[in-house]
Amino acid sequence: MASQNSVAGMSPKITGELLRQLRQAMRNCKYFSEPIQAYIVPSGDAHQSEYIAPCDCRREFICGFNGSAGTAIVTEQHAAMWTDGRYFLQASQQMDNNWTLMKMGLKETPSQEDWLISILPENSRVGVDPWIIAADQWKNMSRALTSAGHSLVAVQDNLIDAVWTDRPERPSTQLRTLGLEYTGISWQDKITALRTKMTERKLTWFVATALDEIAWLFNLRGADIEYNPVFFAYTIVGMNTIRLFVDLKRLSDPALRDHLQLDSPSKPELSIQTFPYESVYTELQAICAALGPKDKVWICDKASCALTQVIPKTHRSPIPYTPLCLAKAVKNATEIQGMKMAHIKDAVALCELFAWLEKEIPNGTVTEISAADKAEELRSQQKEFVGLSFPTISSVGPNGAIIHYRPLPETNRTLTMNEVYLIDSGAQYVDGTTDVTRTMHFGTPSAFEKECFTYVLKGHIAVSAAIFPNGTKGHLLDSFARAALWESGLDYLHGTGHGVGCFLNVHEGPCGISYKTFADEPLEAGMIVSDEPGYYEDGSFGIRIENVVLVVPAKPKYNYRNRGSLTFEPLTLVPIQVRMMNTELLTQKELDWVNEYHRKCREVVGAELERQGRKEALEWLIRETQPII
Amino acid sequence: MASQNSVAGMSPKITGELLRQLRQAMRNCKYFSEPIQAYIVPSGDAHQSEYIAPCDCRREFICGFNGSAGTAIVTEQHAAMWTDGRYFLQASQQMDNNWTLMKMGLKETPSQEDWLISILPENSRVGVDPWIIAADQWKNMSRALTSAGHSLVAVQDNLIDAVWTDRPERPSTQLRTLGLEYTGISWQDKITALRTKMTERKLTWFVATALDEIAWLFNLRGADIEYNPVFFAYTIVGMNTIRLFVDLKRLSDPALRDHLQLDSPSKPELSIQTFPYESVYTELQAICAALGPKDKVWICDKASCALTQVIPKTHRSPIPYTPLCLAKAVKNATEIQGMKMAHIKDAVALCELFAWLEKEIPNGTVTEISAADKAEELRSQQKEFVGLSFPTISSVGPNGAIIHYRPLPETNRTLTMNEVYLIDSGAQYVDGTTDVTRTMHFGTPSAFEKECFTYVLKGHIAVSAAIFPNGTKGHLLDSFARAALWESGLDYLHGTGHGVGCFLNVHEGPCGISYKTFADEPLEAGMIVSDEPGYYEDGSFGIRIENVVLVVPAKPKYNYRNRGSLTFEPLTLVPIQVRMMNTELLTQKELDWVNEYHRKCREVVGAELERQGRKEALEWLIRETQPII
Repeated sequence: MASQNSVAGMSPKITGELLRQLRQAMRNCKYFSEPIQAYIVPSGDAHQSEYIAPCDCRREFICGFNGSAGTAIVTEQHAAMWTDGRYFLQASQQMDNNWTLMKMGLKETPSQEDWLISILPENSRVGVDPWIIAADQWKNMSRALTSAGHSLVAVQDNLIDAVWTDRPERPSTQLRTLGLEYTGISWQDKITALRTKMTERKLTWFVATALDEIAWLFNLRGADIEYNPVFFAYTIVGMNTIRLFVDLKRLSDPALRDHLQLDSPSKPELSIQTFPYESVYTELQAICAALGPKDKVWICDKASCALTQVIPKTHRSPIPYTPLCLAKAVKNATEIQGMKMAHIKDAVALCELFAWLEKEIPNGTVTEISAADKAEELRSQQKEFVGLSFPTISSVGPNGAIIHYRPLPETNRTLTMNEVYLIDSGAQYVDGTTDVTRTMHFGTPSAFEKECFTYVLKGHIAVSAAIFPNGTKGHLLDSFARAALWESGLDYLHGTGHGVGCFLNVHEGPCGISYKTFADEPLEAGMIVSDEPGYYEDGSFGIRIENVVLVVPAKPKYNYRNRGSLTFEPLTLVPIQVRMMNTELLTQKELDWVNEYHRKCREVVGAELERQGRKEALEWLIRETQPII
Repeated sequence: MASQNSVAGMSPKITGELLRQLRQAMRNCKYFSEPIQAYIVPSGDAHQSEYIAPCDCRREFICGFNGSAGTAIVTEQHAAMWTDGRYFLQASQQMDNNWTLMKMGLKETPSQEDWLISILPENSRVGVDPWIIAADQWKNMSRALTSAGHSLVAVQDNLIDAVWTDRPERPSTQLRTLGLEYTGISWQDKITALRTKMTERKLTWFVATALDEIAWLFNLRGADIEYNPVFFAYTIVGMNTIRLFVDLKRLSDPALRDHLQLDSPSKPELSIQTFPYESVYTELQAICAALGPKDKVWICDKASCALTQVIPKTHRSPIPYTPLCLAKAVKNATEIQGMKMAHIKDAVALCELFAWLEKEIPNGTVTEISAADKAEELRSQQKEFVGLSFPTISSVGPNGAIIHYRPLPETNRTLTMNEVYLIDSGAQYVDGTTDVTRTMHFGTPSAFEKECFTYVLKGHIAVSAAIFPNGTKGHLLDSFARAALWESGLDYLHGTGHGVGCFLNVHEGPCGISYKTFADEPLEAGMIVSDEPGYYEDGSFGIRIENVVLVVPAKPKYNYRNRGSLTFEPLTLVPIQVRMMNTELLTQKELDWVNEYHRKCREVVGAELERQGRKEALEWLIRETQPII
């Protein structure tokens, strides 16, 4: 799903020869003074992006698994790949017998460190490309290996690239400028706000490496990575200088030069100096060479090890989330308005899709792929559509149990009246990003399917309707989504929600709702996250109900210690199929929630469907939003 | 509450002169080569105990605050003390104007590190006694100070002791041996199990510093610290040797020598070598001097910095929880049986107390102190009673809002028909430890009091009745306890539950239920924790409902991926006052839970009351356990 031109399907990639070549490179002293005994291939690119460009799909290239998360490690004797519960099925189908699948999150699965320590001969050297491993991961891995008598070695030449003969080029797409009507705040004001934070923390420099943070900062968008409107760049901000590292060929467009005030900066401290993308390393070295004894450089601890280690340790001030990441997460009024508009347009497309599916499925002509294509076609008719925000998960019956399934010709199933259909899809519009999952049955669902759907719905509602104090971290809400499933001995092996960008990455930090207690930042009004519990019955069906929700102030009866309360407002306004519910399992409060949600869908999306003259979809919407009584 | 002979009450301690003397010591080069600019006074003793002996109450001595958690820091100009939400009120009442109260958990409160950095002059030296700061705390503090240009300095002589002229002696009470009928497993088998873990992890030595772990390991109990049946000791276990560091005068009792097989060990590897308590430092130094290149020493990262730093870093294998801590937490069948018996006896005493209170309160003669004394008297009549497990919190009306209140003559209120009464109490019996909170009204509670009580009850039930997968960490259950309060804008500023020892510390790791995501270990069957949500209305009343609960297997309808499910079984069997409930706010499921709980109280405790011939209490129990219909 991460790769644009992925040809890997659900049949395993044959990797014997590639592994032989890689192992040869691991022994080849062209790359290092001494051979290495293991080589780590992380998932990301030099910006630690979750979705990556084809040229950066090194882990997929070596093992065949093309999910969005996973780390491969190759030793002389072994090849193993770690991924999480979303991908267990997919990975086992995409990798050949040369590979061992390491199922993260299961008790019996060793960590990468423990596994390496258990199999490596004494005093082994473990190599990794320092550009594609994050500084914090390097530190943990290095510490573990060192304490066991091994060492972690930075290998400057990427060994996958060395054996990847037809590796694609790095993309350099046209840049799009966004005006205040979309962003609500100018890049100049964002720079000023950043500098205020730097002053507060007594920091002299800030290094931005995350692509979405750079796009957000400059109110620019690109198309370098499919689904994510970002562009390859680095930025270094000082108190009086701004350095942008980007393929300089991209900066010839006069509108863009004007937007960035490249030729006539309004103030000297808002003048942007541009440098080639590749020169970030040497520029940062030059900056660090000139640091005063008290100067500090702010960098995310998830930035690449290579760039982080340029900064001398005493001058380094690592943070789990950058000020840009935090500022970007709290949407302003303009962005919220844009996100609302994008979700209404998206709902129009989905209502049309579902009305169409209902009509076409009995003919037996709709497949997972054609349904996904239809969804894209309908979305593309909406104003300011840019593209999808991630590859559509369109899955029938057993395919639905593959959590991040993507339909391919060899796996493609036909939609029928007999199986559950799950579609998880979303789009990029210039005014916002969407991400929605609906699970439907076009015939008569089984009692078990309805039961599971209803537990998932109860979890979805429990999160969506939760009221909680200001300052609550998202992970404290995760169990609300699971309680109904747990009560029946069921569960799902993924988090409940992720941050969502505004015409940016569909997955963004620093907030989320997960049982994993990563260092998530407290939820605050204006943040936008997904709410997507699920249930997956291997070999049979998958269920997920996902809305994108906005954190809003709540006004409960009391206000303990004046802390204030928060709750969620659904931005996604697409009916949840009543046919899949066992309404007897719902409490009155839950029924009320469903009815009120459907009333709002009908009112808001109905008006837009009417305006667009989409009658069949409107009829479908009205029927699907009948109150449950 | 931690101090046995505490004379500090709720009026502030006058600390001006003491601070003057301490600051003089901070400048006195008798203690170090250069003066220090700040001195940290942590809460604990050299074993990082939560409850401490009078000789170790240094933080209380310097600032007056005698709660169980808090850290004082004194600089030339400032004196500040950090504590958590349980103690905000108490600390503000016990400290004079020389001290600033730092309310932990509030957004605006700086961390100790940030505060120090914000006020210290450049290149400051911050001192601390390395024996009473844990290694992990030292590391964090040292790193933060160093990165800001300061340094953390180990001051070998404790500066509080230097100004504390009448400091009490370290206790050395008689040791009690526990047979298999209480422990279920011999100390020899515990040593063998420990060595198995050491072999698995390739470790050659294990250093035990936590007093409850040492007591548990040897099936011994002491009375060195009030409420906690432990004794001052260290233990170092090798693959063939066992070294016990303890006041040697304690080892003269023939039964004890026999229990430990000091004179005739059954096997050489189970022979215990005894050493004076103080010699642990030099013995560990000697062990470390003889380590082979691959030898590793296992020590808890919460052990003292002083002892941890004896072990060379390359040989050190720090862990958040020791294998003893983990083994101790999972109670065996004998321990569970003992805990159940202890809780039945405890319930007998409380039923008697409440029947007595009901009779006596109208006379206006019962106070917080006399009620607490009565509770202790009634408990002491039960078989195998040893003492209280913590100071009884007996609080009326506004005193109930002081979360860890302890009644003192100057704060003592009379129990009336008009105010809420909260009693949180527990005892040590030879077969188990108890901890129970009940909140009652002997007249007519207000609608608001009932409403709050009912939300707290809903939270209590939500945790107690929760079904969750094997391997779930306790912190994932915390929000269940808060959801009903949150929905009305209310909350409580403490965790929901803590591990409970078996005739050991009433607070123990490694499991618990808290919004703080400390590194808690997953819950497993046999673990015992408390379930104690609350609500506190400052100046008015406090509510808490606490049961000790046992983690037991659950058998829900399904069994996803064969993970198995868990739930809780209440060990505490004391009626929850129906008069305080607004039963209209309870769901049918919650009502059923209350009725079933009361049925069990009546059946189990009723039988024991009958056996003991305690008629009035039995009548009270039967009346208080009438089903709600």
